[in-house]
Amino acid sequence: MQGAVLYGPRDVRIEQRNEPTIVKPTDAIIRMAATCICGSDLWPYRGIARVDQPTPFGHEYCGVVEEIGSAVAKVKPGQFVVGSFFASDNTCPICKAGYQTSCVHRELVGGAQAGRLRVPLADGTLVATPGMPPDDLVPSLLAASDVLGTGWFAADAANVKHGKTVVVVGDGAVGLLGVLSAKQMGAGRIIAMSRHEARQKLAREFGATDIVTERGDEGVARVKELTEGLGAESVLECVGTQESMSQAIRSARPGGYVSYVGVPHGVQLDGTGLFFSHVHLHGGPAPVRRYLPQLIELIWNRKIAPGKVFDLTLPLAQVAEGYRAMDERRAIKTLLRP
Amino acid sequence: MQGAVLYGPRDVRIEQRNEPTIVKPTDAIIRMAATCICGSDLWPYRGIARVDQPTPFGHEYCGVVEEIGSAVAKVKPGQFVVGSFFASDNTCPICKAGYQTSCVHRELVGGAQAGRLRVPLADGTLVATPGMPPDDLVPSLLAASDVLGTGWFAADAANVKHGKTVVVVGDGAVGLLGVLSAKQMGAGRIIAMSRHEARQKLAREFGATDIVTERGDEGVARVKELTEGLGAESVLECVGTQESMSQAIRSARPGGYVSYVGVPHGVQLDGTGLFFSHVHLHGGPAPVRRYLPQLIELIWNRKIAPGKVFDLTLPLAQVAEGYRAMDERRAIKTLLRP
Repeated sequence: MQGAVLYGPRDVRIEQRNEPTIVKPTDAIIRMAATCICGSDLWPYRGIARVDQPTPFGHEYCGVVEEIGSAVAKVKPGQFVVGSFFASDNTCPICKAGYQTSCVHRELVGGAQAGRLRVPLADGTLVATPGMPPDDLVPSLLAASDVLGTGWFAADAANVKHGKTVVVVGDGAVGLLGVLSAKQMGAGRIIAMSRHEARQKLAREFGATDIVTERGDEGVARVKELTEGLGAESVLECVGTQESMSQAIRSARPGGYVSYVGVPHGVQLDGTGLFFSHVHLHGGPAPVRRYLPQLIELIWNRKIAPGKVFDLTLPLAQVAEGYRAMDERRAIKTLLRP
Repeated sequence: MQGAVLYGPRDVRIEQRNEPTIVKPTDAIIRMAATCICGSDLWPYRGIARVDQPTPFGHEYCGVVEEIGSAVAKVKPGQFVVGSFFASDNTCPICKAGYQTSCVHRELVGGAQAGRLRVPLADGTLVATPGMPPDDLVPSLLAASDVLGTGWFAADAANVKHGKTVVVVGDGAVGLLGVLSAKQMGAGRIIAMSRHEARQKLAREFGATDIVTERGDEGVARVKELTEGLGAESVLECVGTQESMSQAIRSARPGGYVSYVGVPHGVQLDGTGLFFSHVHLHGGPAPVRRYLPQLIELIWNRKIAPGKVFDLTLPLAQVAEGYRAMDERRAIKTLLRP
């Protein structure tokens, strides 16, 4: 089958790879309906995170189960399923507490930018849709696999509640779906920080009430102006840099909540500053599995359309152009059709 | 009147100071029933935090209202009151959310190691007891002013709930009262980290079920052993150093809660490590005012005896010996009688 392989900075290639097979009795093999490129794939693509050897890439997926291992009991061949980037048993105490991405048996799913994929711990990891989805729902179901689930976790971890004021730092696909999630959770006011016109437009469509284009001190000052000098009750940090983290913490009011969902790159937090900010801080790899049943239901019933973040669709064979378009910010997010 | 003044490292003196007077119409003057020395006073006493000029010291107090400003309406002369180290209006949005130590009008209360004290924003800051307390309740009421309120906030911010497993890092008065607070909140298991026999004994008396004497990697390993390899659901960091913060975060399970209530000194948090720890992190200057009515009630009805942390009582004139005893860890906490 064809699959994307990252060789090094800005060198992603489509190659002939072996078909996946059942390795453990808890595995399933799925045929990909669609896959995509994640903002986090850009860190190694840009050489900021290192890959030591040619690595099959991609971790977002949805599709039809083709084969299951002998110990798989819940997932059945023929089902359309969505899963997350960490496979999880969904039965350990950490999973039961809703932190499936820290499951004691977790396994990273990799190589999803391909025609077929092996998913470990299939019963715990995969969630089936109510039936075979119409084609126009596939992008939104694919979004649930990571980027929507991550935006949703960001909003949840930032304690977004009815009527509250929310700031979203980052206008990538996760930030934009953080806006959508905050809207679904009843936020009264959603301030999106963005300088990019197309992204501002989508942010407004997803529920943003205010756009702040300033950054750094000016950005914080603008948020304070919009919140009676206090800062926001909830702030979603959806980038992962020192600047965005600082921006997020300083945009929250004392007693407020800051979530962070992008893998931090070179971020150091000063203990004293954090102490006197008085914020709640929570984040980490989003436990998408916790939210999948709810997110699939919202998508299935057409209450939300997170698939709108895909503003570029390419055949899998053109994966290299998909990375380039995101790297150059010509595309918010690239969907790949195997 | 007599009052303690810090001149520099290990140089605290008792001096004749001017009697406090009403400066603003929202002030009250109280006659101190008792005051004490805080663990946080030891940072400047040891020269780790700097004082630039001779500074009246102390911020823990309870006593009888002697005089009120013209705008004070709730607090009345003759009442016995307890207040916290930050005066707060208790009406701003931050106070209403329970973060009185970040009140938009907050003022630091200082110079409480003295016979009398001016308290700003008296109506918002001071809470009256149901009547004049018997003398044996005074130490516990004094503890409510800071050290108990801080331990209580630590337990609350670490989401201590019925039946949960709690770790307390730090066996100072705040850590010990964190144990007491966790017990009151129904914790099922309370692991106190302490190497000091007298403090271990008090920790057990306050509700600790396990004592861990190891520190660093060994301490973390011991906590993991006691928690099925997962770490604790709630961890209270009651010291404020890099080591104790790291110890606390590594002792919590993914999805768990870590609180920190000691002003951090030289603490830097690595963003990536924090991200993958998956913990909730919350702390800051404890909003003691939020808890004062409840804590006073528990003390008044003799449900808790936090005053037991005072294992040394001295006349105010011997304040220097009080600091020395705490600095050398001969005393957990020194109560001063004016």
